[in-house]
Amino acid sequence: MQNFSIAKPSEALRASLQRAIDQKTKPLASLGMIEEIALRIGLIQQSEKPEIKNPTLIVFAADHGIAEEAVSPYPQSVTAAMVENFASGGAAINVFTRQLGWSLLLVDAGTLQESSHPSVISRRIAKGTKNFLRENAMSETELEACFTIGRNLVRELAAQGCNLLALGEMGIGNTSSAALLIHSLSGIPLDCVVNRGAGCNDAQLQKKFGILSRALTERGSTPNAWEALQRFGGFEIAMMSAAFLQGAENGMTLLVDGVIASAAALVAITLNPAVKDYMLFAHASAVQGHRDLLEQLAVRPLLQLDMRLGEGTGAALSLPLLQCALAMLRDMATFESAQVEGPVAT
Amino acid sequence: MQNFSIAKPSEALRASLQRAIDQKTKPLASLGMIEEIALRIGLIQQSEKPEIKNPTLIVFAADHGIAEEAVSPYPQSVTAAMVENFASGGAAINVFTRQLGWSLLLVDAGTLQESSHPSVISRRIAKGTKNFLRENAMSETELEACFTIGRNLVRELAAQGCNLLALGEMGIGNTSSAALLIHSLSGIPLDCVVNRGAGCNDAQLQKKFGILSRALTERGSTPNAWEALQRFGGFEIAMMSAAFLQGAENGMTLLVDGVIASAAALVAITLNPAVKDYMLFAHASAVQGHRDLLEQLAVRPLLQLDMRLGEGTGAALSLPLLQCALAMLRDMATFESAQVEGPVAT
Repeated sequence: MQNFSIAKPSEALRASLQRAIDQKTKPLASLGMIEEIALRIGLIQQSEKPEIKNPTLIVFAADHGIAEEAVSPYPQSVTAAMVENFASGGAAINVFTRQLGWSLLLVDAGTLQESSHPSVISRRIAKGTKNFLRENAMSETELEACFTIGRNLVRELAAQGCNLLALGEMGIGNTSSAALLIHSLSGIPLDCVVNRGAGCNDAQLQKKFGILSRALTERGSTPNAWEALQRFGGFEIAMMSAAFLQGAENGMTLLVDGVIASAAALVAITLNPAVKDYMLFAHASAVQGHRDLLEQLAVRPLLQLDMRLGEGTGAALSLPLLQCALAMLRDMATFESAQVEGPVAT
Repeated sequence: MQNFSIAKPSEALRASLQRAIDQKTKPLASLGMIEEIALRIGLIQQSEKPEIKNPTLIVFAADHGIAEEAVSPYPQSVTAAMVENFASGGAAINVFTRQLGWSLLLVDAGTLQESSHPSVISRRIAKGTKNFLRENAMSETELEACFTIGRNLVRELAAQGCNLLALGEMGIGNTSSAALLIHSLSGIPLDCVVNRGAGCNDAQLQKKFGILSRALTERGSTPNAWEALQRFGGFEIAMMSAAFLQGAENGMTLLVDGVIASAAALVAITLNPAVKDYMLFAHASAVQGHRDLLEQLAVRPLLQLDMRLGEGTGAALSLPLLQCALAMLRDMATFESAQVEGPVAT
C-alpha cells in the first residue's frame, strides 16, 4: 500500500473568493452551483483567479474474470473491440472530448486481447482479473502494480501542466466489481447498487444479483479498501483510484464520472479522505445506489442526464460548466465596476 | 392578435433517427437525455444529420410598473444599469455566451432610462409597463407592437441562417409578471409561483404575495393568454412569446430558460400549442411553481443548477449538451462500422 501526500486545501482563501463572487453583478447566490464550482476550484488551486489547464480525460480499459458468469449481456470480446473503437475515435467519449476540448488518453490496464493500435497506452497487468466467485480478483502484487501505473501516469500529466483530471472506464463486467466495492466500503445494500449495467433484462439482473451475493459470501465483505480491491478488483478501477489520489497530491481538480468512477473515488476516499476535497462529482446515475452513495458522501452531482454508459461521458460533459464558473469569477463585472446599485436596505 | 403558421414536425423521421441512435456503439438508451435531444432536434430540423447554425441568444430588457409597489429588493434603476452592463460585456450572460460561442443580442423593450450604447437594439414600447395593481400593464396596441417586434427580430435571424434561438430577460419586477401569467394560464396556485425573485427576504416575499393576490383580484384571472399579457405583461415577456412563436414558424430549435422565459413559453404554447414541439427546457429553477409547470407541460429540464438569475443563463449553459448530442448522431461509430458485437441473444 502506497502513501499519497495530500494536503487538505487551506480554507484561508474562502472568504475572499466568496466576497469576489458576491460582488459580481447578480443577486446573491443566484448562480447556484456555478458559484460553488468556482469556489471549490479556487480553493483547490489556492488562487483567486483559478484556471483550467490541459484538461485531460483518461479511459482505463480492463477485462473481468467475473464476466465468465455471464453477469453482462455483452460478450467479453466487447472490451477489446471498444478499445479499438476508442483508438479509432468512434466512441461516445471520443465525440464528446473532441467537441469540448479535452485531451483523451486511452490505457489498456489488462484486456483479454491486446491492441496493436499505436494510440493505446499499454499498461497491462494480466489478461483480465480472476473470477472473484472462485478466488480473489487480483494479487497484492498486481494491485501494487496498478497503483504504481496510475500514479505515474498522473505525475506525467502534472509535469505537462494538466490541472483538471477526469477518469473513465470500459470493461465488460465492471459494474459487478463496482457494486461489490461500493457495498463493501459504504454499507449501501447490495440490491441498491447492483444494476443493469450495459442492459440486463429482469432475469439477467436477478441472476447477476445472485452471483454477486454468492461472491460476497465466498470472498467476504471488508471495509478495508486495499483488501476489497484485491477481492473484487478491477485493474481499471484500481488504477483510477491511484490516479485520483495522485491527482490530489498534485493539486489537480478531479472530475468523478458515474457508478464505476464513483467506486474508484470511494476507494480513494477510504484510503485517504483528503482526496475528496479535490473532487467534483459530474453525473448522478439513474442507479439508486449511486444516488445513495453521493448522498452519503454529501456531494451534489453537476448533471442528471439519465446516462449509464461510463467511459467518462458524464465527466466530459461537465467541462463547460467548470469553464463558465471560472470565467464568471475572472470576467464578470462587480456592482462597483459596473455602477449597478445593490439591494435597497430594509 | 397575430397568426403564426407553425407546422407540427412530421414524425416520419422518428423511426430512422431512433435506429441511427440505437446503432451507435453504446448500450441501448445509455446516453439518456443526450439521445432525446438528438432525436428532438432531428425532428425539428427534419434531418437525419441535424446541425446547429448561428446559435443566438436574445436578452430582452424592460421595466415594470408593479415595481412601484416595492415587490423587488432592488431599485428600478437596476434594469437600465444592467442594460449598460450587458452592453459593456460584464454580466453573467456575456461571460457565458462568450465562453460557449453564442451570438448575443440585446433588446431594450421599454426600460425607464434609455441607453445610448450602440450595441443596444432599441425597440422601446414605453417607459415601462403600467402598475397592474391599478390598471392593465399594457394596451392591446402596445401588445401588438411587442408581437410585431419579436417576430421581426426572429425573422431577421432566420434570414441570417440562425436555427437555434434562446431567450433571456432583465427587468426589475418581472418575476411578479411571470408569476401572474403562469398562475393564470396553468392554474398552478399563486403561492407556488410567487418567489423571492432577485432575493426577497421572508417579509418582502409575504408582502409581494399580498400585492400579487390583490392584483389578481383587481384585474381578474383569465385563461386567455392575449388578455393575460395585457393585464400582467411584461413588454419583454410579450416580445419573448412572439419570438418563440416566430422561431417555431421558422423551424428553429427553441431553448427555454428559467421562470420568466417559461412564462413567455407558456403564453406562446397557450396561443399555439404546436410551438411546444420546437422547445427544449434548459433549466429547472429552485422555485416549486416552475417545477410544477415543467411537470404540467410534461417536459424535463436539461440542467438543475439551482440558478435563479435569468438573463438566459440556464439556456446559455445548455448549448454544449446540444452540440454533443448532434455530434453523437453525426460522428459516433455504429456496431457494424466499428465491428463491435451487440448483446448476446438470450
